[in-house]
Amino acid sequence: MLEQMRKEVCEGNLALARHGLVAWTGGNLSAIDRDRGVIVIKPSGMLYDDMTPEDMVVVDFDGKVVEGEHGPSSDTLSHLQIYAGREDVGAVVHTHSTYATAFAAVGREIPCCLTAIADEFGGPIPCGGYARIGSDEIGKELLASIGHSPAILMKQHGVFTIGATITKALQAAVMVEDVAKTVAVAHTLGTITDLPADEIAANYDRYTHRYGTMAASEGVTQ
Amino acid sequence: MLEQMRKEVCEGNLALARHGLVAWTGGNLSAIDRDRGVIVIKPSGMLYDDMTPEDMVVVDFDGKVVEGEHGPSSDTLSHLQIYAGREDVGAVVHTHSTYATAFAAVGREIPCCLTAIADEFGGPIPCGGYARIGSDEIGKELLASIGHSPAILMKQHGVFTIGATITKALQAAVMVEDVAKTVAVAHTLGTITDLPADEIAANYDRYTHRYGTMAASEGVTQ
Amino acid sequence: MLEQMRKEVCEGNLALARHGLVAWTGGNLSAIDRDRGVIVIKPSGMLYDDMTPEDMVVVDFDGKVVEGEHGPSSDTLSHLQIYAGREDVGAVVHTHSTYATAFAAVGREIPCCLTAIADEFGGPIPCGGYARIGSDEIGKELLASIGHSPAILMKQHGVFTIGATITKALQAAVMVEDVAKTVAVAHTLGTITDLPADEIAANYDRYTHRYGTMAASEGVTQ
Amino acid sequence: MLEQMRKEVCEGNLALARHGLVAWTGGNLSAIDRDRGVIVIKPSGMLYDDMTPEDMVVVDFDGKVVEGEHGPSSDTLSHLQIYAGREDVGAVVHTHSTYATAFAAVGREIPCCLTAIADEFGGPIPCGGYARIGSDEIGKELLASIGHSPAILMKQHGVFTIGATITKALQAAVMVEDVAKTVAVAHTLGTITDLPADEIAANYDRYTHRYGTMAASEGVTQ
Repeated sequence: MLEQMRKEVCEGNLALARHGLVAWTGGNLSAIDRDRGVIVIKPSGMLYDDMTPEDMVVVDFDGKVVEGEHGPSSDTLSHLQIYAGREDVGAVVHTHSTYATAFAAVGREIPCCLTAIADEFGGPIPCGGYARIGSDEIGKELLASIGHSPAILMKQHGVFTIGATITKALQAAVMVEDVAKTVAVAHTLGTITDLPADEIAANYDRYTHRYGTMAASEGVTQ
Repeated sequence: MLEQMRKEVCEGNLALARHGLVAWTGGNLSAIDRDRGVIVIKPSGMLYDDMTPEDMVVVDFDGKVVEGEHGPSSDTLSHLQIYAGREDVGAVVHTHSTYATAFAAVGREIPCCLTAIADEFGGPIPCGGYARIGSDEIGKELLASIGHSPAILMKQHGVFTIGATITKALQAAVMVEDVAKTVAVAHTLGTITDLPADEIAANYDRYTHRYGTMAASEGVTQ
Repeated sequence: MLEQMRKEVCEGNLALARHGLVAWTGGNLSAIDRDRGVIVIKPSGMLYDDMTPEDMVVVDFDGKVVEGEHGPSSDTLSHLQIYAGREDVGAVVHTHSTYATAFAAVGREIPCCLTAIADEFGGPIPCGGYARIGSDEIGKELLASIGHSPAILMKQHGVFTIGATITKALQAAVMVEDVAKTVAVAHTLGTITDLPADEIAANYDRYTHRYGTMAASEGVTQ
Repeated sequence: MLEQMRKEVCEGNLALARHGLVAWTGGNLSAIDRDRGVIVIKPSGMLYDDMTPEDMVVVDFDGKVVEGEHGPSSDTLSHLQIYAGREDVGAVVHTHSTYATAFAAVGREIPCCLTAIADEFGGPIPCGGYARIGSDEIGKELLASIGHSPAILMKQHGVFTIGATITKALQAAVMVEDVAKTVAVAHTLGTITDLPADEIAANYDRYTHRYGTMAASEGVTQ
């Protein structure tokens, strides 16, 4: 019954590798089916090259394996806590993507100094405090610090992103790394300045409410 | 009737992805047919993987959609203003390519410190002031600041390039990122010095007037 | 008789190139068969594009060629010394991968400032002193300095990694470069702080003993 | 008659693109046939994607086109001067590869701080003074400054490499960029120290005289 969902979660995980966001067996993506009471997640410690939809692990909301031959990602508990705390979330991504994790390593948020950051994240990309992997601290810290951003850096650890769909969580994972790289390079070239609050709001509003959805007949002029 | 042009604009947009200049749905390329009174441009918010010539959007000079099922790029108004202000321009590219956008993030031009920059850009690559996306400020600021350069950085935003043809606008987009990366690395290694004005002029003249066009019979010696 | 081992060693060497850890003919991977008294290693000075299992060189524990038409890697003596000094090692990798070698160039260990480093390496990744290539100094210095880490930087030279299997040595080679890049970028963004010793121990224990091996029925909650 | 040579020169040029050393139409590779009195070189201003052996241009030692429909590379005069001044050279490569050109931008040699640099270059990789493209200054400056190195940086311009064969000139072009990147990163991490002169000599001797050529029967121990 979950065949389609296992396929989509597998494709989502493979996209992490294709976008260069993960190394070796690191990183993971899951999606939730709230009606069936399950999440589907990447197995623990599996290379992306070898991964098929059949390898995906189905767990219930207590983290108990319902379907699948492998153990679930060691980050499964964190995913479950995020789904429990945020009903709007349909998919979760975790990576150690290089540039975003470099900001996390030094415990810095990514400042909202570019229109692309205002568009995607609506403000600075927050950095949550350090929390032990496999404990329930990561989910708590994430929920306390992520606000309305689709991405959060976790201090000395890596990145989590959330979205209503797998595509949206993937988009946030791709974009947080893209802007992190740009801002890291900019940091070596001069002084980073935040966009003014009204410009951040105007960009976020345009991008969130109108981007990609404009009816063809509307045209682009006001 | 615009089949060939939609095909070329689609290929041009796909080249942005192939050259690593865009992430996710970001960036866009358009071309103009001044006789027919239309531009063809990438649709808003579409992934490059999925893009076909049929997805390209045809708009008139008021930005009204003439052909196409999708909304046009949210940067369409800026493209239109550039075409209106510069009759020599046949194609426009917009990206947030990493290294060029890093210069834009801190509001710095790219200094003309390498022969490759003198060749392609004829001087420093300018950085225009901040302007709100979707407003008419971007086109105005660009036209006021680009001069004879085929590329301009827009402060805290990204890059626009122009050319008589799609190939020329693409070339400028590839080269601005290539030299931006080189100069950003150089900046961490020592002091950047501009080429003297007469060397910039000599390189630009050679590259613009003779490069790639030398008749075989001329040979290379003087 | 060693056909399968030559195939696996060849695939391991090709994985170095696929993961972007080597340039031109640089780097090498070997594996040992302690029962037969041989190691199989990459030939000296061969391009990765051209490499087949038949090109792998079989040498005995004195470094004498037993099978193969080519000379063995110029690092063969160092591999032999590592196998002699560490009975737990089944495979050795040597690279000059960019970011890890940058730390080696300045003689710095990679600090244990990220959970990924604690997971894979159980502490900082050590940097051994300078030793002449082709002499017996490299093996001695490596054995004296590597401790329980699967990777070591060798000052002004490059990286060696070890593992019980080819896969494990490859994993360490991929991960040392991945974390080196992250830490190098982080270093330009702020102050690097080590994880506390108890957090390093907790991560290393979880990753070493439970990651990828959790029985499906265990679930993830405590 | 020059069919085979045009094929090899075309393959050599395509290798520049495959190794990521060139952007757009930049860079070029040539080879010489001293008996026939010709060099074969990349055409001026041609994209690598489009290049076939038939596009290669054959010029005599005065730079006059003997065979070929296109104009020769605008760097042809520099290639000719190098062949005239150095009878040991069979092939020449020119690139603006990013990290090596970053050193060139600030007029710095690449210090001999790694065994890989001692191996390939036998000392620091020199940086020649600025010289105008298309004039006879580049060849003169290069010959005066390259010494026994197979690579030289040209101030505020790029990289030239030489070799007895196309493969050797390519190898130098790949390796100069590889070590330039490593040293540029190292420069952000700490203090770069040259290897002692006797270590440079020992590495260069081993690599030049024994690497890849060791008879299988010799083994690796002394």
